[in-house]
Amino acid sequence: MQLSISTEPLGGQSLQYQIFESIRQQILRGQLKSGTLLPSTRILSQQLGVSRNTVVRAYDRLIAEDYIFTIRTVGTFVNANLPENSMALRDADLPGQIEGEQQTTRHPILFEGQAQVVENPNRHKLVIDFWVGRPDPHSFPTKAWRRLMLHHLSLAGSNLTEYSDPAGILELRQAIADYLGPTRGINTTPEQIIIVNGSQEALNVVSRLLIKEGTRVVTECPCYQGAAYLFESYGAQLKPVPVDKSGIEIEKLPLTRTGLAYVTPSHQYPMGATLTLERRVRLLDWAWEVGAYIVEDDYDGDFRHHGSPLTAVAGLDQHGCVIYIGTFSKSIGAGLRLGYLVVPNELVKPARTIKTLMDNGHSWLDQAILADFISNGSYTKHLRNIRHTYLTRRDCLVSSLHEHFGEVQLSGLDGGMHIAWHLPANFPKAKEVQALVQNAGVGVYSLESAAACDLRRNECSDRILALGYSSVSEKQIREGVARLAAALDKAA
Amino acid sequence: MQLSISTEPLGGQSLQYQIFESIRQQILRGQLKSGTLLPSTRILSQQLGVSRNTVVRAYDRLIAEDYIFTIRTVGTFVNANLPENSMALRDADLPGQIEGEQQTTRHPILFEGQAQVVENPNRHKLVIDFWVGRPDPHSFPTKAWRRLMLHHLSLAGSNLTEYSDPAGILELRQAIADYLGPTRGINTTPEQIIIVNGSQEALNVVSRLLIKEGTRVVTECPCYQGAAYLFESYGAQLKPVPVDKSGIEIEKLPLTRTGLAYVTPSHQYPMGATLTLERRVRLLDWAWEVGAYIVEDDYDGDFRHHGSPLTAVAGLDQHGCVIYIGTFSKSIGAGLRLGYLVVPNELVKPARTIKTLMDNGHSWLDQAILADFISNGSYTKHLRNIRHTYLTRRDCLVSSLHEHFGEVQLSGLDGGMHIAWHLPANFPKAKEVQALVQNAGVGVYSLESAAACDLRRNECSDRILALGYSSVSEKQIREGVARLAAALDKAA
Repeated sequence: MQLSISTEPLGGQSLQYQIFESIRQQILRGQLKSGTLLPSTRILSQQLGVSRNTVVRAYDRLIAEDYIFTIRTVGTFVNANLPENSMALRDADLPGQIEGEQQTTRHPILFEGQAQVVENPNRHKLVIDFWVGRPDPHSFPTKAWRRLMLHHLSLAGSNLTEYSDPAGILELRQAIADYLGPTRGINTTPEQIIIVNGSQEALNVVSRLLIKEGTRVVTECPCYQGAAYLFESYGAQLKPVPVDKSGIEIEKLPLTRTGLAYVTPSHQYPMGATLTLERRVRLLDWAWEVGAYIVEDDYDGDFRHHGSPLTAVAGLDQHGCVIYIGTFSKSIGAGLRLGYLVVPNELVKPARTIKTLMDNGHSWLDQAILADFISNGSYTKHLRNIRHTYLTRRDCLVSSLHEHFGEVQLSGLDGGMHIAWHLPANFPKAKEVQALVQNAGVGVYSLESAAACDLRRNECSDRILALGYSSVSEKQIREGVARLAAALDKAA
Repeated sequence: MQLSISTEPLGGQSLQYQIFESIRQQILRGQLKSGTLLPSTRILSQQLGVSRNTVVRAYDRLIAEDYIFTIRTVGTFVNANLPENSMALRDADLPGQIEGEQQTTRHPILFEGQAQVVENPNRHKLVIDFWVGRPDPHSFPTKAWRRLMLHHLSLAGSNLTEYSDPAGILELRQAIADYLGPTRGINTTPEQIIIVNGSQEALNVVSRLLIKEGTRVVTECPCYQGAAYLFESYGAQLKPVPVDKSGIEIEKLPLTRTGLAYVTPSHQYPMGATLTLERRVRLLDWAWEVGAYIVEDDYDGDFRHHGSPLTAVAGLDQHGCVIYIGTFSKSIGAGLRLGYLVVPNELVKPARTIKTLMDNGHSWLDQAILADFISNGSYTKHLRNIRHTYLTRRDCLVSSLHEHFGEVQLSGLDGGMHIAWHLPANFPKAKEVQALVQNAGVGVYSLESAAACDLRRNECSDRILALGYSSVSEKQIREGVARLAAALDKAA
């Protein structure tokens, strides 16, 4: 028989693979039946005008994979063991399915959820972008990173080829524990620290520890999408509690049994309030009363524009009810995907187990670099530099807004990398402002576009504009606000 | 009043911090009551024998954090707003809790599971270690990696400071798609590929897509702990199906509705069988009939010791029911934590959503390096080199075993990085052999120690010894087997 094989010399794949694949497909689709005698390699190579070796290697692979077999001095045949009427192999597009054979309905996809916004989908259209939570690319400590990277790469031994501790390498956990004492008032041991793939993974560890169908979870309102959507995906019953200029409103916390409260005390996301000391204490009292854990997400707490960073809620906790989440996404860069959890003693073992089940631990090299970067003092120096830059930019943004819009109602000024602007009543809604200004090449963001969500659907939220200033130069800030003013003028 | 503050000049923390922390603790524990007048900075600095500036800075931080406040020309006082009888602040170890105030029972830890073995706990005690699934540390492509790392680090722009596509950067997904066609017969698009933090994370994506309380999940028996324990942690009802020398026994698959079957067709973990083509086809037919998805974990499929790697089950699938999991942990190194999923079209959107909710995506730099490493041909060359090394080591291990033990019953020879030795009836059990040999400085492994589990508790499993040969030199192999023989002789 003559096989119908078309080879394309320019097809990108080797001739050998094309012959292999063509015969394989014909067998699988039943065009070459079990037991069929195939042409000899000599004849097929002549037919195709290719070297005999090419055909021999294609046949060898077909033999190795059991599609064909050779009987010495007799010939090469299509394997007789393949199920003749396999449904699996029949081309889904071909007509003539065997009657009477019906597929059981496919097992359903059980997941129905939504994800947080991670990237700004329009960033490439923008000249000046006030996207939130972006460190300045120029601030990345490239030199120090390169030096440490080369050092650890050359001394890696088996660290690159083997698994290390799933909770993170000890050097990094020790460096973080040493850092957290003086800067956040958290006294912790390396054992309580688990290195994770960014704080989003930390929230997954928390969810698997504490949330099942119906677990009551308090969130701030508005809050970060990545937490709310995640908790919901694990079956949580969310109880959004409003925030004011001093953070979450303690007196509005539910007085019923609650699994956990997710809070952002340093710089509430997205509104920017700093939780007062009094409320921190009352939040801990509430947690004690209703039996809840507190999950403290300190995503940008490294940036306080006045004084030192505040003592974390975890630093006030005497009863082991606070789970603290830290990240290097804002202080160094989100491209590294490095964060950590500090858990109370009773959660150490199950949290380690969950992290292991999730992904066997974190990439070794980045951990080794970061451990040195912190413990040799470079991290503190790095933070000092960028704090200064961000403060200057915040001041520039505030004064530009004043200049163009007079009295403006802003929140979130005390720290972090973004502010929230409460738009005046005569302005369009935040979404419309965003669209108008985008046409002028400038990115400003409604809460929803900035990965925040308002579960109580408060109308006020429609009038909040989030403005990230950490990754925009002063010149760009001034130009961006001017364009914003011009776009709004034109639309009025 | 005179404050009781002890500062330790050699305490590791700055004096300023020690003063801050000491006053803070006294306030929080109620030793300094609301409204108390504090000593002036001048007086306190004299008392402590430190510079006045140090005390001023400590007070400034206490003021910034709301613990104390100053009334000009009058003095500095402890904040009056802190709840007097806060349970949260009372030292858990101090006696005298307020009566009548009881904590609601703390929200329970909902997770009760176990994790797979990741590291060999005894590795530092061993001179020669046949631990499984370890690439040779010398095989790591350090030079190429360094070159690509420096290149991408210098051109990183905002890639290190910002988030990238949560499903992985396009260049890497494209490189993997291009690689999978000729090597595995999988025709896929970059859209169907999701980069994950090692195959363990891939299994989490699968679990969240397809498993809920009571979902029937078929596993091979014995199988990989990290899959079985994970599926159980999501509520799966496991149905272990035995494997023989041709892989999972198709006729023993349950004929009832099943969510998914988790299989390792290239080199069954831990027994090493290669699933025959006939069984691959029949497995697909079975999946069609019972409505199941097939999860194909191709953890070490890059290493075939005879012929090319086999066409994956995913390459035979005409109906979009196979989820393929690939990893670079075995072919490059587990320290990188890089793997991927190839999902059928209908799962693309929910799988991307889940990956986003899990951790916002993978570290950028490693992805950029790996993308180049694959697409410039280095990966194929790298595999060719180590395949050769591993084959030589496998042969050395087999001949050493023959030399010392005569006829030995081995499985898993055709590929991968380890073999399974079915111990003769007159030998101690695998666990005992492991203990005996460990005393001689050699690591050999029972199935359980090698991260495998036998859910059917088959007695035969107790007599299987797993021997990884990829990270042991020929000299070490010969020495290790000789020590193994001597230890057994001595014990007999």
